[in-house]
Parts: sequence; C-alpha cells; structure tokens
Amino acid sequence: MADFSPAGRAVLNRRKASVGDGGGRAVPHAGRYFEDPRGRFTGQGRLVLLPGTVEQVAQLVRLCSETGTGLIPFGGGTGVVAGQLSPENAHAVILSVERLNRVRDVNAQDGVMVAEAGCILETIHATAAEHGLMFPLSMASKGSCTIGGNLATNAGGIQVLRHGNARDLCLGVEAVLPSGEVLSELNPLRKNNTGYDLRHLLIGSEGTLGIITAATLVLKPIDPETVTALCAIASPAAALRVFEVLRKDLGNSLSGLELMSDFGLRLVNRHFPDLKNPLSDPQDWYLLAEVSGPEGIRERVEETLAACIEADLVGDAVVASSEGQRARLWDLRENTPEANRLTGAICNSDTSVPISRIDEFISRTYRALGDVHPGLRTNSYGHIGDGNIHHNVFPPQDVAKADFIAAHPGIIDAVRHAIDEVTVACGGSISAEHGIGRLKIGDLEHYGSAVKLQVIRQIKAALDPKGIMNPGALVARPG
Amino acid sequence: MADFSPAGRAVLNRRKASVGDGGGRAVPHAGRYFEDPRGRFTGQGRLVLLPGTVEQVAQLVRLCSETGTGLIPFGGGTGVVAGQLSPENAHAVILSVERLNRVRDVNAQDGVMVAEAGCILETIHATAAEHGLMFPLSMASKGSCTIGGNLATNAGGIQVLRHGNARDLCLGVEAVLPSGEVLSELNPLRKNNTGYDLRHLLIGSEGTLGIITAATLVLKPIDPETVTALCAIASPAAALRVFEVLRKDLGNSLSGLELMSDFGLRLVNRHFPDLKNPLSDPQDWYLLAEVSGPEGIRERVEETLAACIEADLVGDAVVASSEGQRARLWDLRENTPEANRLTGAICNSDTSVPISRIDEFISRTYRALGDVHPGLRTNSYGHIGDGNIHHNVFPPQDVAKADFIAAHPGIIDAVRHAIDEVTVACGGSISAEHGIGRLKIGDLEHYGSAVKLQVIRQIKAALDPKGIMNPGALVARPG
Repeated sequence: MADFSPAGRAVLNRRKASVGDGGGRAVPHAGRYFEDPRGRFTGQGRLVLLPGTVEQVAQLVRLCSETGTGLIPFGGGTGVVAGQLSPENAHAVILSVERLNRVRDVNAQDGVMVAEAGCILETIHATAAEHGLMFPLSMASKGSCTIGGNLATNAGGIQVLRHGNARDLCLGVEAVLPSGEVLSELNPLRKNNTGYDLRHLLIGSEGTLGIITAATLVLKPIDPETVTALCAIASPAAALRVFEVLRKDLGNSLSGLELMSDFGLRLVNRHFPDLKNPLSDPQDWYLLAEVSGPEGIRERVEETLAACIEADLVGDAVVASSEGQRARLWDLRENTPEANRLTGAICNSDTSVPISRIDEFISRTYRALGDVHPGLRTNSYGHIGDGNIHHNVFPPQDVAKADFIAAHPGIIDAVRHAIDEVTVACGGSISAEHGIGRLKIGDLEHYGSAVKLQVIRQIKAALDPKGIMNPGALVARPG
Repeated sequence: MADFSPAGRAVLNRRKASVGDGGGRAVPHAGRYFEDPRGRFTGQGRLVLLPGTVEQVAQLVRLCSETGTGLIPFGGGTGVVAGQLSPENAHAVILSVERLNRVRDVNAQDGVMVAEAGCILETIHATAAEHGLMFPLSMASKGSCTIGGNLATNAGGIQVLRHGNARDLCLGVEAVLPSGEVLSELNPLRKNNTGYDLRHLLIGSEGTLGIITAATLVLKPIDPETVTALCAIASPAAALRVFEVLRKDLGNSLSGLELMSDFGLRLVNRHFPDLKNPLSDPQDWYLLAEVSGPEGIRERVEETLAACIEADLVGDAVVASSEGQRARLWDLRENTPEANRLTGAICNSDTSVPISRIDEFISRTYRALGDVHPGLRTNSYGHIGDGNIHHNVFPPQDVAKADFIAAHPGIIDAVRHAIDEVTVACGGSISAEHGIGRLKIGDLEHYGSAVKLQVIRQIKAALDPKGIMNPGALVARPG
C-alpha cells in the first residue's frame, strides 16, 4: 500500500466517511478481488471498497471523479475476460457491490423483481421460485455471479434460445453515472418509449459508463411441464437438422439446446466419476434439449424424438422422467467448464456464428488448430441453438499443460488467433457472451468496424470525460 | 418552394445527382409526407427525397451535414406523435425510405431476415410465412407502416407479451450516422457482446441519431396450434385475475391479451356493421386472449376458460374454431383505432402502467376526466398483458367534435394533462409505444428525470453535433 499519489491518499482518507465500518479492505487482505477465475493474471489496485448503499456508491464515484481516480466495479468475480481486474493499474480503486445485496421488491402480478447489483444469481432464482415464477437467466457460475455483473456484461447462458440474454430480461436499471449522479429508471413497465434506451446502453458496457446498482428484472411464468432429453447424434450437422425438426414440431416451446461431445462427456466423467453418460451406445456428439410448455408437452417431445430416431437423425435418446434425472442431465453440461479447467485447457473460446454455419465453423476450426499443432485436442460444446460454441483446447494426451506451453512459446496466442480468424471468416463474433474486458480489447480493435469503434469512443468521451469508469476495459485508450 | 437559403439551394441542386431520377418530389406534389394520420397538424419542409440506395442516403446526409440542413426521416407516415413531420420547420428535407424496400435475405435455419427500412410490415409477415416462419411484431397499421419506422420508434403492438417490442426482434441494424458514415452491423448473431449496443441506442431514437436503412430481424417458429378466445368479464380487475390464471395454467404460451370495452365494441359495430360481438350476453368488458403452443394446447385453453367461467371470473367465452373466426375476433380489436377516429376522439392516449395498477389507473382516469367535463365518454382498450392502455376520449353523446372543441377551448390539453397526471401517479409512462416525436416533447421534459434528460442531450450532442437529424423531435433544444 505504498506509493500513494495525493489523489489516492484523498480517496483513502475519505472513504471511511463514505462507506462506514466494514466498507473497505486493505489490499493485503483482498486476494479474491485480484484473482482471475482461470488463473491467467493477477489484478492490482490501491483499495477495495464495499459500499453498502447507493448513496455511498455515488459519493465514492464523485470522489474518484474529483481526484481522477480509476474505478473498477466488481461483482461476483466470475468474469473470464479481465473486466473486473486490471493487471496493470496499481492506482485503481476496486468497488465491490457485494454489500448491495437486497431484493428490494417482488411483484408477482407485475412479473418483476427489483434486485440490487450484488444479489447472487442463484438467490434471484430461489426468490422468484418462492413467488411461483422464474428468472430464466442461468449459467454454470450461477452460485457465485451477481446480477450486477450479469447485466454489466450482458451475460448469456443456457436459456437464451427462448428467453434472451441478460439485457432481454431487464426492464430498467438504477446506476451511478461517472458524474456521481444516480440514474434511477427502475419502473416495471413492459413498454416505455420515452427517449433513448439508457438501460440498454449501460447493460453490456462492462462498467465503463456507470455502475449498475439495482435492476428491475422480468420474472416469467413457470411452464406447467418441462422436459429434458439427451440425444446421441453423429455430427454438428445432424444437430442442426434435429434443431429444425424440434422447432417445426414444438414451436417456441423449445427453451434450451446444448451441444456436447463424447470427448467432453468423458472428461466430465473422469473428473466427476458420479456423472455418467446415460446412453449405452455412444456417438461422437450429443444434444441436450429442454422443452417447456403446457401440460401434455412431454408426449409431443417423445413423438418428435421417436420420429428423429426413425429418420436416423438421432441414434439414441433418453428423456428424464423425474426432477432428479433432469438435474443429472444438466450436471453433465454444467460441469463441463470445470472439467475443462481440471483437464488443463490452454484456451477457452467464446464464439458465436450464424446457426447455419456452426458445422462449417467447427470443422474449419479443427483444421486450423491442426495446422497450429497436430496434437491439440479440442472439446467443443455450447449453446448451439444460439450459435454460441465454446472451444476448449488441450495439449496432446499425457502432456502437462505447463510443459506444453513452455515447449511451445506463443501457442496460446496462436490458438486464439486461429479460432478468431475462422470465427470472423464464418461471419461470427469473437465474444458471444463473455464480453471484451481487458483480454479481448486488442481483438475488438482489430476485428470491430472502424465506424462502430468511433461511435463507442464518442459515447465514452461524452459520458465519462475523465475516463474514471473501469479504465482500460472495453474501450481502448486512443493512441 | 420559394425562399431557399443558400444551404437549401445546395441540397436542391445537388440532390438529383445523389438520388437519380424519381428520387425527389417537389413539395406541391408531396401532400402525404406532410399529413398527420389523426389530422391534427400539417408538416412543412423544403424537399422530399427518395433515395434508392444506402449510398444515396449517405450522400444526402453528408450534404445535409455540410450545409447544416435538418433532415426528417420518413417511413410509412403512420406515427401519431409528429416524429415524421414538422409543423414548424420549413427548411427541413424529408428523407423517405420507401424506395429502400428490398428484402435482402431470408435464412430459415438462422431464423432471420435482412430487410431494408422501407419494407412494409405486412410484406415482412408474408415473406416470413413463405419460409414457414413468423415475424411477431404486429399492429393495426401493419399494412402501411415500415420496418424502419417500427424500429426508429421501437413499436410495440399486440404480441409484446410473449415476443417483446420491435427492439427485441432485431439482431442488428445498418444505419447512416449524422456524419454520413454507414454503421453496418447486420449480422444474424443471437449473442454478440462486443462493445456498446449501438443497435439498441438507434432503435427508439426516432431518427435523431441516424437513419436506419436495414435491419436483421428475428423470425420465430410458427407454433403448431394457435387458439384465440373472446371472454366477457365484469371489470379490468377481473381481467387481471384471468391473466393470472392463464399464466399459471398455460405458462409462456400466452402470446396476446387485449382488453376491450363494451362501449368500444359498439363503436366498432356502428362503423363496421359486419363486425359484431359474437357473445350473446354482453358485459362491460372483454378480453381477447391468444395462446400459441404445441399440438393439443386448444384443449388446455378450453379447460382453463371453463374453470374461469366456473369461478365466475369470466361470464361467457367463445373460442375461435377456424382461421376465419380467429380473424373476425381480431378484426374487432384491430378496427378499434379507426372506429375511434370515425367517432371523433378528441384525445388518444398511449399509456403504460405496472400491470398490478391497471385497474386503479383506469378508475382514477375516469374520475379525473369526469372533473374535466362530466359528459366526456371514454373508450379504454389495449394490451393489458403489457400494462399498455389507450384511452380514447369523445365529446358527450350527440355533440360534434368540432363544436365541442370550439365551445371548450383548452379541453384537449386538459384531457391530456389529466391522463398524464394519473399515469405518473400510478408509476406509468406517458408514452408506452408511440414515442415522443414533437407532440410529447414538452411532456418528456416535464415528467422525465433530469439525469436521464441530461444523458440524452449528451449523447445527442456527441453523435449529432450539428443537430441535423430529425431536429425538434425527441430531444428538446436547450433553452
């Protein structure tokens, strides 16, 4: 905690008045705020502040504005693109929203919940369920990620196919702007055309335009029946044909469609021996499909899958017949990121392409990765119904990650570059759901259109002229 | 066409080179571009330009930028808040997108259509249907309104409950910015977190930040079964209780829920004698419900309505048993705006409130209108599932509109003010789906939060520093 600039000292001296007891942590005791979930980098910062009220957040932002101090908002710390930590900015202040964790209101008739930014996603699920409703945003990190972070990064996850991304499930936000003023637009209205949609500008801006302190979330009815099935299929191309049949037969009731590979299921089973592929006749690929609708929809799903088996689109399938079985099927999918981590992935991509090009995207990526190094192994999985595929790339069998990286300097960048190039050639996005953060800022500069980047910089300069909001994330500094 | 400023002359002289033959109309032959659909005001302007390509739009915008000429984008001309016409700006140029009317691409597997701004909404519906898909945005003006206007104003309509507003059905836009540069973000990706969401900033900005020239639209599967029912109910409070039952029994399959009054149905019948209330036992209010889902959902709807009748929530109900019957039920709803116009409404509100406060909103409005003038008659109807109610207010029985207005100067403003005040007291929005335009700009200044208005002005100044884009609409000029 040495080397305070006068500005830093001012923040330090005045923050206690701003946030009260328990409102700050000295850096030596603040390890988790500087840890990357994938262990790739270590954040820096002068102070970690934990305001307990919106007014405290506003005071801190005003203080940072006066002193020109950079402010890094921190939610659950689960982001994987270094949006919430800065390896290069020892002067920044970390502002964690964890103490802003109240559910302010639930109104079942309006179908909304007003939740503060620090609420954990799983808590929001449980609270909605208590009111007989559901909040559809969900992802593997749901036990740790916060709704503030979900909105700041416009998180995606497993139910986007039917219910959309985080932004589509939010009716309004409360946010502290770089000026320290509070924008309070928390109304639960489904239609409200009164000026520019500042909610959508703040959502996905990764804390660079303001700090979201609370949000009005859409709660949806729970469909009377939810059916989950695992299907063995021959290829991603077959997955797309099954997707077509499901859409045709079941319409908008299809709520999730996940692609998994046999390689991936075996990795999960290796690290979580209780989790077994329930199908006795393995194929190279699998589809996990979820359908929600009125009573009786199970029969429709079974008919549709039977027809797919009859037409040789699906090799074998299992339909969960209890909540426990449903959960077990989802466990296979949701433990995939952890299995990848434990196996030692050297790269985890987050790519979306047009749905019609998924098959091409996967096969071209495999060729490109073969050119980088013929021994690389790849576990591809993801939200195929949204065109969102994650490639997890591993060293050759029986080669340790550290040894492999040491023996092949630059291989991580080469792998990332190969995937990005195929992504862009297939008309895709280099960040489907994880955002830009600090990790992908060069990629955005490289692949983003000049016109778009120019508008982003104009907006940033207009709303945060001192550049105090999450400096170094998303918006590249000029020059 | 007299009184050209040098800037205006430059536009006039150079526009032919820009837009080619057939690309412009002299003002004397351009009546429809200056007409308000509700006959309340007359637009002005120097020229009407009809570019046929995006590059021509860009050239015109650059020309207007150089000469400081205001530009008013024009879609189908169906907007009701004077966003597309300026009664006070004789110097502006009207830029109609009607010749930009190509569907550039439909990809059924991706579930998207790329349509130019001038495509009529009904054409988009028909094109989607040809590919076995649907575009859910729909409203009474669908035969005339353009998708460019729908997006510029973030139109709502009758299927928002399940499918969202216009913005929720658009994956990307192409737009000419005030600088004359073309922002081209038309990719069909469902997930794409690469920087600020400029699509959502442009959508709903009413042409004040750029001219949307094309968009990538979401096409959804057609549900195997769609069921439409008309229910007689005692009150808006009963409507909300039925809404709760429908959500509980049918989950997310409920796709539309419209409130109508017996007074309104009688107005429709008076002006369209073929359109009759099919229920023999009239009540004060009606609900038009639409449910879409898998095969077999009709039975679920019938069971649910039977239970509602049993519980005395619904007096009588009819479920359409053919496409023809479905269309007839919707005709009752969709001809309501025209029946209001023919009856001589002196005010048409566009309000949304929290769903739980609809009943309070309607009864408080009636009391407030009674205080304005005890003889006023009101037809309230709208998208009750979205909390969006339109009040149409008429003179007393047998009093002609013109006579009434002449006898009661200021009554129109008094009625609007009374509705707005109740709206805001109920936590609602003074513009649910029609936008601000020029008609409601004073209301937005009055009711909008100072912080929000400030951010809107900052964004406008940053992206359109010369103020050439739809000047006088949405963003009030300082001072």
